[in-house]
Amino acid sequence: MATETTSGAATTAANEDLVAGTPAPPDPTPEEKTEIDRLYADFDAEHMMPLWTQLGDLMPLTPRPRAVAHVWRWKTLLPLAERAGDLVPVGRGGERRAIALANPGLEGRPFATPTLWAAIQYLGGHEVAPEHRHSQNAFRFVVEGEGVWTVVDGDPVAMRRGDFLLTPGWRFHGHHNETDQPMAWIDGLDIPFVHYTDTTFFEFGSDRVTDESTPDFSRSEQLWCHPGLRPLSQLQDTVSSPIGAYRWEHTDKALNDQLELEKAGFPATIELGHAAIRYINPTTGGDVMPTIRAEFHRLERDVHTRPRREVGSSVYQVFDGTGTFILDGNEHTVEKGDMIVVPSWVHFSIAADDGIDLFRFGDHPIIERLSLSRIQEDDA
Amino acid sequence: MATETTSGAATTAANEDLVAGTPAPPDPTPEEKTEIDRLYADFDAEHMMPLWTQLGDLMPLTPRPRAVAHVWRWKTLLPLAERAGDLVPVGRGGERRAIALANPGLEGRPFATPTLWAAIQYLGGHEVAPEHRHSQNAFRFVVEGEGVWTVVDGDPVAMRRGDFLLTPGWRFHGHHNETDQPMAWIDGLDIPFVHYTDTTFFEFGSDRVTDESTPDFSRSEQLWCHPGLRPLSQLQDTVSSPIGAYRWEHTDKALNDQLELEKAGFPATIELGHAAIRYINPTTGGDVMPTIRAEFHRLERDVHTRPRREVGSSVYQVFDGTGTFILDGNEHTVEKGDMIVVPSWVHFSIAADDGIDLFRFGDHPIIERLSLSRIQEDDA
Amino acid sequence: MATETTSGAATTAANEDLVAGTPAPPDPTPEEKTEIDRLYADFDAEHMMPLWTQLGDLMPLTPRPRAVAHVWRWKTLLPLAERAGDLVPVGRGGERRAIALANPGLEGRPFATPTLWAAIQYLGGHEVAPEHRHSQNAFRFVVEGEGVWTVVDGDPVAMRRGDFLLTPGWRFHGHHNETDQPMAWIDGLDIPFVHYTDTTFFEFGSDRVTDESTPDFSRSEQLWCHPGLRPLSQLQDTVSSPIGAYRWEHTDKALNDQLELEKAGFPATIELGHAAIRYINPTTGGDVMPTIRAEFHRLERDVHTRPRREVGSSVYQVFDGTGTFILDGNEHTVEKGDMIVVPSWVHFSIAADDGIDLFRFGDHPIIERLSLSRIQEDDA
Amino acid sequence: MATETTSGAATTAANEDLVAGTPAPPDPTPEEKTEIDRLYADFDAEHMMPLWTQLGDLMPLTPRPRAVAHVWRWKTLLPLAERAGDLVPVGRGGERRAIALANPGLEGRPFATPTLWAAIQYLGGHEVAPEHRHSQNAFRFVVEGEGVWTVVDGDPVAMRRGDFLLTPGWRFHGHHNETDQPMAWIDGLDIPFVHYTDTTFFEFGSDRVTDESTPDFSRSEQLWCHPGLRPLSQLQDTVSSPIGAYRWEHTDKALNDQLELEKAGFPATIELGHAAIRYINPTTGGDVMPTIRAEFHRLERDVHTRPRREVGSSVYQVFDGTGTFILDGNEHTVEKGDMIVVPSWVHFSIAADDGIDLFRFGDHPIIERLSLSRIQEDDA
Repeated sequence: MATETTSGAATTAANEDLVAGTPAPPDPTPEEKTEIDRLYADFDAEHMMPLWTQLGDLMPLTPRPRAVAHVWRWKTLLPLAERAGDLVPVGRGGERRAIALANPGLEGRPFATPTLWAAIQYLGGHEVAPEHRHSQNAFRFVVEGEGVWTVVDGDPVAMRRGDFLLTPGWRFHGHHNETDQPMAWIDGLDIPFVHYTDTTFFEFGSDRVTDESTPDFSRSEQLWCHPGLRPLSQLQDTVSSPIGAYRWEHTDKALNDQLELEKAGFPATIELGHAAIRYINPTTGGDVMPTIRAEFHRLERDVHTRPRREVGSSVYQVFDGTGTFILDGNEHTVEKGDMIVVPSWVHFSIAADDGIDLFRFGDHPIIERLSLSRIQEDDA
Repeated sequence: MATETTSGAATTAANEDLVAGTPAPPDPTPEEKTEIDRLYADFDAEHMMPLWTQLGDLMPLTPRPRAVAHVWRWKTLLPLAERAGDLVPVGRGGERRAIALANPGLEGRPFATPTLWAAIQYLGGHEVAPEHRHSQNAFRFVVEGEGVWTVVDGDPVAMRRGDFLLTPGWRFHGHHNETDQPMAWIDGLDIPFVHYTDTTFFEFGSDRVTDESTPDFSRSEQLWCHPGLRPLSQLQDTVSSPIGAYRWEHTDKALNDQLELEKAGFPATIELGHAAIRYINPTTGGDVMPTIRAEFHRLERDVHTRPRREVGSSVYQVFDGTGTFILDGNEHTVEKGDMIVVPSWVHFSIAADDGIDLFRFGDHPIIERLSLSRIQEDDA
Repeated sequence: MATETTSGAATTAANEDLVAGTPAPPDPTPEEKTEIDRLYADFDAEHMMPLWTQLGDLMPLTPRPRAVAHVWRWKTLLPLAERAGDLVPVGRGGERRAIALANPGLEGRPFATPTLWAAIQYLGGHEVAPEHRHSQNAFRFVVEGEGVWTVVDGDPVAMRRGDFLLTPGWRFHGHHNETDQPMAWIDGLDIPFVHYTDTTFFEFGSDRVTDESTPDFSRSEQLWCHPGLRPLSQLQDTVSSPIGAYRWEHTDKALNDQLELEKAGFPATIELGHAAIRYINPTTGGDVMPTIRAEFHRLERDVHTRPRREVGSSVYQVFDGTGTFILDGNEHTVEKGDMIVVPSWVHFSIAADDGIDLFRFGDHPIIERLSLSRIQEDDA
Repeated sequence: MATETTSGAATTAANEDLVAGTPAPPDPTPEEKTEIDRLYADFDAEHMMPLWTQLGDLMPLTPRPRAVAHVWRWKTLLPLAERAGDLVPVGRGGERRAIALANPGLEGRPFATPTLWAAIQYLGGHEVAPEHRHSQNAFRFVVEGEGVWTVVDGDPVAMRRGDFLLTPGWRFHGHHNETDQPMAWIDGLDIPFVHYTDTTFFEFGSDRVTDESTPDFSRSEQLWCHPGLRPLSQLQDTVSSPIGAYRWEHTDKALNDQLELEKAGFPATIELGHAAIRYINPTTGGDVMPTIRAEFHRLERDVHTRPRREVGSSVYQVFDGTGTFILDGNEHTVEKGDMIVVPSWVHFSIAADDGIDLFRFGDHPIIERLSLSRIQEDDA
């Protein structure tokens, strides 16, 4: 344990930028310093650690995330996934050919943010990723391609460009590619959070998927994807959304309708030229899963979102178009497939070129359910 | 005040069917009887009334609704509404050309059940029903016709066969017929309940509708009718559904999908051959309005629902097909447009001929929110 | 059925006070009038009733309760109850020697308000009111006396001056007087509401109480009446409060503490000199039962509450002191034991003489759960 | 970044204990191995990391907490705190003379568990710990001593043996010792969780406490600590409990009452001889703060709790008596003041000697609000 041993100084140094005006107590005498050093060593031996030497790190005035804002390029991600497709088999044990974004600030862990996992997954033609289930909540988002079905508790869900697919905690799921072509998509999970809170459970299922049929729509959609209607056979609310796939045609239409309403003079968008939807659990109207929020944003040509920062971390993927993310003052131009991590309390805004479509997910349900949320709109 | 004055007897008579075995107290002497008569008269003079003479009526073993099961025929309702269309103007003051179902058990009040109002409303070609708002929650359901728009807080909502339309409490609304043809539909409200609880508020609005445009879809649908998606500009939950119209094409598809799933071997219907949806508030997943539940049921050929009774009252309208309602043992054959009232705790089941489509509304949100619900499945 | 038959006029007359400026449609010709009369007769025959002749009564601009503001005097109530004690036995069949307040506006029904039952109950020395249970929610409040135990699902609950006791829906309960002296208290229930909604269920229990012990405190209090503490064995929330008795010593202390805080300069009362508590369900922090709210108010000398009106009906009982109720402008001086009914939307305020203590119950949980609440503070 | 580079093997090795029966894919050829090494290096360079080499660590079959079960002795903690009292000043900058339990499994961080902070705080005679506020939720529990007041948003709260005191997130608080004697107590916070989720906010307040009065009871208690009663001036539910201090006399009485009920034959305890309460937020009936649960347990002589394990971590402090904690099979005898950490999913049970009183806090509100809870009762 590495505790500072400058004691007298330590009591103020931790927050010295914050309380510069406060007179420090007198420096300890050499004898006192010896005593203090001994005390700190004794703390160490007894697995104790003083607050006063840690306060500035542990409790700064505002969040100081270790995760950093960072962009991963699709043109980098995809070729590396393809090479993995050639070299690394998929199957029981490794379970998935998924390669995670490892935030440069997070000490070599495969974590996009402290709470979120984001990965590119790659499945070759006719490959199968075997079934398993785990307490972690998961989704897929498809930026391109098709031909894979995710089977969720026996329900085959087609994956197509623009679709957002759920495999909430403890539901068996596997993937199988019915075509000759490989397919790649992104996975989002709460692996870091579940790991951190020691809440992980995992169970292996069938080595192949339990239903190899390839319907255009899942049974979950037949039951649930009729606007404003709920099956009378399904009146029990569920922790996570029962919808297996949120189809691109609906998302696209919802965003276009918002922009059309805006043009007709009615409030519908969140700011001028900025349409957005949240994917929800139809049994509650709330977030799709207890730990993960998912949204889709459409910015029209030349729109620049109002700068803000908020508690909680996000990952974006560009679905279409081009633009610029401004993160704590640094500009990052982005294009289709690029993935951007926005840590907690980072100032951010987004500028569209000819228009940009963005998928976004974040840990905000965690933050909000624990009453830790804050949002700050920056001055114009 | 008409209190019984047979006193000694009265204390047991009220529930005599229930406690036949209990020995009655000795009959009062003539002197006692005189005293008791005087006591009861004094109660009366002081606006007091004993429980023991009222108990059997007030607190029977199970509900004894005064409302009776009854059927109103569309072939009767519609011609009478047409005659009203010829004779009675619509406009400010009378407000609506609506003729209510007056349950024969409810003492000549225009109430379908103690809590529910159900009426046929009729609007001639190019007529306008002026705008107003009230604390009562209202909906329309269209069994035939089209060409009228209901304008809800300025949002024009087209009315077409099979559509279910909302005008929740305190939203301004009016109707205007844009065609040369009359149109009739049914109104459902909580007028009796609001009247009973002394919670009514009413306000007149524009003498004409505030937006005379005739779009195919309302703005509320553009914002809200995308399955599983919620506008990011509308994250505040609302007491009533923000959806102005639930379109027939979605209802029809949802029911067909349930039956298709059932045929493929998956649970989706509430009993074999009986598909059903509940209309919901997408912000909560719950009922569309605080006092009214609305559902749509589809019974396939020859299906006979399992007999049951439940606390709370319902009104059905046949949307299509033919069948039989069995209400406390009495059979009523019904066809398109017919309206059937099912009071609380009446045994009921429904038998389809070649198949029957049924719209239903009821007061069950009141019952459930106040923890007064009971359901009893009859023995097979 | 008594529908008005003046038709043309009828369409405006109903709300004529409201829309005086609207020009009436032309009077019908004699031929038209004959047709209209025939139409209305045909409506009648078919159990239909037009809205336009009913609107003013059914949907006025603000509530027009039939129940009236009224005061019942304890010095009237108690002697009449005593006479009933001499003349009318208590036991199975009549069940309770309770005499209800019958609101003069409510057509001879034993209802204090449309939703609420309020009665004086009287039990002679060593008498027993047998056990039963019902869907109706009930409470007792004790303005004077002691010596009776209410046994609730086998838990004996002592009744003493100032105590507020619960017997929520479907819990068996009986009363037994362990002394030589009679005792009287008030009962409050939702009998009218349960009757109106056809939700009543009733079941007889033991002819005597199932536990004749006479502990000072009930088991429910031992489990639940420790402030801010919840038994780990009782983590399931309950629809109604699990507390059998809210003791006067706690109520009195809570009110005194509020007034003491106010005097020390801290916000605690609802207006100057007006302390008040709500009795709550400790599992939720909400009302004690789904249909009934109960509160206790203490007004210091010369306090006059701010005039207001609110949707929902209330019954007060003076617990101590004297004062004046001002109800729609009429003054009623009141003293210990007097009971005052305040219907929905009646302007009311209360003036204390040397100070007044008031128990209050109302139907506001019904109003609030169904989103029908309104409160209007009158101008000073 | 240290990813394993044995690839082919890696895909199965991670979970090899779990899927021992699955045939591994053929070993890679030397050429393949070179390619794979190059791929992994390229992943590294691009801040990517494969799932298949991490799976066993990240997603084991059940939680494998890094935090370890551990006991800190009061007889060690207190003298070290006393030495700190002699050597280290308390005041602005260091803020508090608090020394944290640093779980031996958590890499030298001052964290009792991944989510929880537990510390001994020490305040000398007449010392003041200045006011500040932070997003972290905090409480104090007093195992011995008195004479310090914690001032919470201006409300002075006396601290005495057995009291449980709250300073929820973002409320200003300071401590001042009004006696000549030092006092020590324990602090519990969600510092690790707030640090991990990057949700920390901190603000300095007054250098001294804002109210130096020393009342026996806080204003919060005067408002809120009346069982089953809620101030009418405080009807808005709050995220955290408004109660500043849960007094020992209430806790002690509640536990004794449970044991007395048990002895009389009624269910009240959670197992035979094991009484327990949860401290709650009276506005909701739920946990006192969004991230921290607090309970008090009393085990009678020779009681041995049923072994179990549960998701979520806890810290216990012995308040009185002696006993033994059995944690994953290891026995730890404990006495007054000792603190015991129980990580997630560790088998644990507790055996009392002559009886033992235990304060406990844990992170279970986090676990439950995010639907990650599991409890396993061990076989007898």
